[in-house]
Amino acid sequence: MLGSTHGTLTTDSRRARVIACGEQPSPVVHGRPAEVDDLDVSGRPLYADVPDLDRFFRPESVAVIGASDAEGRPNTGITRQLIAWADRVGARLHPVHPTRPAVFGIPCSPSVADLPEQIDLAVLLVGDPLPLIGELAEAKVKFAVAFASGFAETGAEGAAEQTRLAAAVRRSGLRLLGPNTNLNAFEKFRDDLDGPAIALITQSGHQGRPVFAMQELGVRLSHWAPTGNEADLETADFISYFSEQPEVGAIACYVEGLKDGRSFLLAADRAARRGVPVVAVKVGRTETGARTAASHTGKLTGADTVVDAAMRQYGVIRVDGLDELQDTAALLARARTPQADGVVVYSISGGTGAHFADLASEAGLSLPTLSSGKQTELHQWIPEYLNVANPVDNGGHPVGDWRGRKIIDAILADPGVGVLICPITGPFPPMSDKLAQDLVDAAEQTDKLVCVVWGSPVGTEAAYRETLLGSSRVATFRTFANCITAVRAYLDHHRFVSAYRSPFDEAPRTPSPSFRKAQALMRPGQQLSEHAAKQLLRAYGIRVPREQLVTSAAAAVRAASLVGYPVVMKASGAQIAHKTELGLVKIGLTSASQVRDAYRELTDIARYEGISLDGVLVCQMVERGVEMVVGVTHDQLFGPTVTVGLGGVLVEVLRDAAVRVPPFGEDQARAMLSELRGRALLDGVRGAPPVDVDALVEVAVRVQRMALELGDDIAELDINPLMVLPRGQGAVALDALVVCR
Amino acid sequence: MLGSTHGTLTTDSRRARVIACGEQPSPVVHGRPAEVDDLDVSGRPLYADVPDLDRFFRPESVAVIGASDAEGRPNTGITRQLIAWADRVGARLHPVHPTRPAVFGIPCSPSVADLPEQIDLAVLLVGDPLPLIGELAEAKVKFAVAFASGFAETGAEGAAEQTRLAAAVRRSGLRLLGPNTNLNAFEKFRDDLDGPAIALITQSGHQGRPVFAMQELGVRLSHWAPTGNEADLETADFISYFSEQPEVGAIACYVEGLKDGRSFLLAADRAARRGVPVVAVKVGRTETGARTAASHTGKLTGADTVVDAAMRQYGVIRVDGLDELQDTAALLARARTPQADGVVVYSISGGTGAHFADLASEAGLSLPTLSSGKQTELHQWIPEYLNVANPVDNGGHPVGDWRGRKIIDAILADPGVGVLICPITGPFPPMSDKLAQDLVDAAEQTDKLVCVVWGSPVGTEAAYRETLLGSSRVATFRTFANCITAVRAYLDHHRFVSAYRSPFDEAPRTPSPSFRKAQALMRPGQQLSEHAAKQLLRAYGIRVPREQLVTSAAAAVRAASLVGYPVVMKASGAQIAHKTELGLVKIGLTSASQVRDAYRELTDIARYEGISLDGVLVCQMVERGVEMVVGVTHDQLFGPTVTVGLGGVLVEVLRDAAVRVPPFGEDQARAMLSELRGRALLDGVRGAPPVDVDALVEVAVRVQRMALELGDDIAELDINPLMVLPRGQGAVALDALVVCR
Repeated sequence: MLGSTHGTLTTDSRRARVIACGEQPSPVVHGRPAEVDDLDVSGRPLYADVPDLDRFFRPESVAVIGASDAEGRPNTGITRQLIAWADRVGARLHPVHPTRPAVFGIPCSPSVADLPEQIDLAVLLVGDPLPLIGELAEAKVKFAVAFASGFAETGAEGAAEQTRLAAAVRRSGLRLLGPNTNLNAFEKFRDDLDGPAIALITQSGHQGRPVFAMQELGVRLSHWAPTGNEADLETADFISYFSEQPEVGAIACYVEGLKDGRSFLLAADRAARRGVPVVAVKVGRTETGARTAASHTGKLTGADTVVDAAMRQYGVIRVDGLDELQDTAALLARARTPQADGVVVYSISGGTGAHFADLASEAGLSLPTLSSGKQTELHQWIPEYLNVANPVDNGGHPVGDWRGRKIIDAILADPGVGVLICPITGPFPPMSDKLAQDLVDAAEQTDKLVCVVWGSPVGTEAAYRETLLGSSRVATFRTFANCITAVRAYLDHHRFVSAYRSPFDEAPRTPSPSFRKAQALMRPGQQLSEHAAKQLLRAYGIRVPREQLVTSAAAAVRAASLVGYPVVMKASGAQIAHKTELGLVKIGLTSASQVRDAYRELTDIARYEGISLDGVLVCQMVERGVEMVVGVTHDQLFGPTVTVGLGGVLVEVLRDAAVRVPPFGEDQARAMLSELRGRALLDGVRGAPPVDVDALVEVAVRVQRMALELGDDIAELDINPLMVLPRGQGAVALDALVVCR
Repeated sequence: MLGSTHGTLTTDSRRARVIACGEQPSPVVHGRPAEVDDLDVSGRPLYADVPDLDRFFRPESVAVIGASDAEGRPNTGITRQLIAWADRVGARLHPVHPTRPAVFGIPCSPSVADLPEQIDLAVLLVGDPLPLIGELAEAKVKFAVAFASGFAETGAEGAAEQTRLAAAVRRSGLRLLGPNTNLNAFEKFRDDLDGPAIALITQSGHQGRPVFAMQELGVRLSHWAPTGNEADLETADFISYFSEQPEVGAIACYVEGLKDGRSFLLAADRAARRGVPVVAVKVGRTETGARTAASHTGKLTGADTVVDAAMRQYGVIRVDGLDELQDTAALLARARTPQADGVVVYSISGGTGAHFADLASEAGLSLPTLSSGKQTELHQWIPEYLNVANPVDNGGHPVGDWRGRKIIDAILADPGVGVLICPITGPFPPMSDKLAQDLVDAAEQTDKLVCVVWGSPVGTEAAYRETLLGSSRVATFRTFANCITAVRAYLDHHRFVSAYRSPFDEAPRTPSPSFRKAQALMRPGQQLSEHAAKQLLRAYGIRVPREQLVTSAAAAVRAASLVGYPVVMKASGAQIAHKTELGLVKIGLTSASQVRDAYRELTDIARYEGISLDGVLVCQMVERGVEMVVGVTHDQLFGPTVTVGLGGVLVEVLRDAAVRVPPFGEDQARAMLSELRGRALLDGVRGAPPVDVDALVEVAVRVQRMALELGDDIAELDINPLMVLPRGQGAVALDALVVCR
């Protein structure tokens, strides 16, 4: 139970690769051949592979390999727990031990081959599970759980051992949980609670413990998957499976490392399609991205930012603390679909209401002012001088009598109100006991969400322990902050789900016509010249300035008159970076003589600096607009990602950028823009005209397509700047850097 | 107890005004004449006026005006509570009632004048306390508490009534708590707890309740001041008084509105000088600043940002939730001075340690890697394969035996370690009970801080309730987040206090030589012309470009050759704003003919737009540097404030600015810069040279001086842009806007 950090080995989500149009290898997913149709153009699967885990969670027959009843051995305690559990759930348990005739009086089989019946689940209490895998497969055992530690969590040697174990499992057809896991799947689940439950997935047993303990506060838990090192079954498998279980109201995850980006997103997609909320703690906020990218966009977003964005794309609710995980998952599991977004704060103290409302508004909850009709209604029971606009302050006394319930019902009857929150910071039994009971009674009569914050740090009060926690219809919190986090997640989740369209349904399966042209431009392992990089962009329909590559001063002058004055001239070559700093860019040239001089100067500098050129670019000068950056970066977990940021000094200093994992469409491209702190620049500031946001969105979507088709061959792609022109005039990629893998 | 929001009336902190050098009116502070020396140049006091509240909190004689023992009257309950309290603390209680001979058997006086002895504290249970004030003053009663509501919290009429009450109190010499307050000062304080205590100040009784309830968890509370509407005694008075009390380890405040900015800062200054931490919830995060400023800097910071900055300047720890207030105040009250900044996370689960360390690092705590010697020492007791670098993972088993305590002591013995944090997410009695006891025992033997997070949501476990809460040496939390917030506040507080030098000691008391010159330029109620505004800056030693104001094209040409080409020309006049948008600025003029043309064009536009000019400015052109903005804005609560921000599009779109309340020195001016997200711009990006930060700091300090001397006569002052030149070259105010009050 108290294992150390878990050694999830990151796998390559590109399980098979479509090399070019027409070539279609047969990818293998989880040991089964998958339909070619199930892959996108990058060779990654489009649909989650949902394992049937019914017999894992509810096995009829269980074998315990390494069972023991010898005093003082750790396996003895585990065996005892498993026998009690099997007894509880009605599974037949068979100990396996090479020499003992019986364990705790249950007859022992000497080996897996000698087991008296076909086994659903084998619990492996042996130090090295690898030699057993073949035997288990032969006996057609469906599932195994490996407790042994000493694998990837201990370093390189253990990781190699884990890779061997994973390979053996893949060949066997068996599904394995672990290694480095434990008994959590076979804990004692309360069966006296009903209604929708939390299904729990944790890589660490210790970290799952407080969520599981929620059942002691009346919150139903249905499953617990302690995934450990995830040599085979991973978090994504359980998310997919739990999404299909009718009793699961929400999935709570504690994740240390994700094994595969795409699998996780497909599982999240599955949950989103079914409207099942997934709440996750993902360790790694401070993880420093392992990437050493030379481009701007590559530095803009660390690996954790990508995790964050990917989760948001698929509606996974990321929280930081286990307490938030508990409170948010419990609320989402049990609350019904909101009928309105409006939140009303109701309190027996004006101070409490004002304080809560202040924090709730700051967090983005909508606290509508109640209508004057509703306020008049409330003033039947609440003294006239108290504020009932929202927050509603009753001054205390009305909760002590028949008026208390009337007030609550009247607020809940308002069609604009979806959530009523009552913070009770100090218990004062003559009032708070009655208030708690009224809230519970009212919550039973409504589909709307009723939340209570029980602010007393003591927490032994009867109104809290018995009245509030005794009701599954009231969501009870201990802090303002957790209530606000959970209610926001609840409203956001339902808004997300109701608008959700899976990007996987629309992801391209075959390369676009641009692909062949683009492929011919790629130079594996090399940086492309600016000119080649721009041709690549043009192949994908991204506009670049009129420009010509020239190799003489005379040609430069001819090019300038074709391109049109004023022009920009830049040295072009495969190895050039930091052109501006080296003086390899000349702008605003307005005459033939300036062009001739510039040509000479650029080639002189290049010669002096020892830079080899493929020529000099003579480009159209584009000035009026907002500079952005758009790029592709390779993420270890998710593969190619697309970044959009503000250009110039903003990207340099403030890293004002947003990231997404392909595939995604216009909606997400627009959402990226709204994440930028400097978003207002696009609407025009200081008298500047609003720029062509549609064109910017289109570029982002086209770059997304490039990332899908070419992404695994691109180390980095960086359009910097992309000049977004005034509305209706498009966007032009003024410079581009492409490094091939 | 369950009063509504509290109507603090904001007063003007400029209690007296020094009009000019030499004129010295006699200011009156709290009814007593203050020394002229105690005022800064703005006329605001420099030192907190600390009321002697000993007899308020520990009165020997108490009168209850409006005492009752009639069944069912609210005053009866209150009287009963007061009698019990007086009995407990050994005070003599005298009921006052016009007709009754006795209340609860205690002889009654018919009026204040008839009381049998001199009274320390009068509790006013009457609907209108105003008529009593004179009587109380005559009887030389020291303190009164007014329960009555219906004052400023109810609107304008109540506010007027409150102003009358405040005036009567000021005349009387009596000190008053309330109105709209309650019994909280006379609650039952546990007397079986020792060590440093929390002193509590809350405007709302209900909101103070959970902090007060901390004594049920073993945290000592020494005082509770429920300030209500603060007609007289305010939060600041209690902060000052509590700072002087030896038993007070920390002051916890819940503030709805501050009555006076300077008083609050002076009280915070007093606490900072004495090293007493002040932790505060201040409602109003979403408050929209009431100011309608036309300048940039005026829009940059809302009123709440100013509160935030002012609190930070004086080391007040602002938190959002009452739970954070409880946990942070309890830790700060009881923990000793840190011996080192290093935090070690110690856990029985690698997952828990990694998760906690991730969040702690993100919050800015320093988690040093333990030395290899220390790691070797720990590996005596912890298996070799577990990580003990920090976080320290013991794998679980060692805590169950003699090794557990050894590990804790070894970590605490490390000189780089100031704080040990042990998160226990899941109770597992064989391990966690022993672990809790070992932590408590170890904490008793060290001055270092030992923190535990008891992560179980259940909270009824003996290890938590008895072992951990039973120790005043261990700081116990329920969530990772609150532990991290409190530990950060603890380390920050001690760092702040050890470096603290009161800005009030160095604040100017008399106007600088610049003042007279500046005053002559001011035009009450008007906007100054750019030229006049720049003269004002120059008077305070702030550099402006070489420039001349001219009224003919010929004079412009002469000016240009004196100023030096290239020049900038701008229309100058008292009412001009948005010059650039109107085309009233011409830059980069390099010849006499360009200057002549520009003169004509500028005057033509002004004529066309109907703008009256006082001339045209011919200015030196300054290009190379970073554009900043520096300004003065008038805050309702704190008076003139100084803002420093990044210029150009950054200030326009991202509002990247920091604010401070004068007086402040170079240290705070530098701290402002470090708060800017775009700070790196000052160090040079994209090959630009680092700029003259010292010059920028000097400008901020000079503007601070202007704000002190002229601030109350300035509606807004806006240097935009201030061009900060490369290092060693200074900073130049290229444009300035000044609006006089």
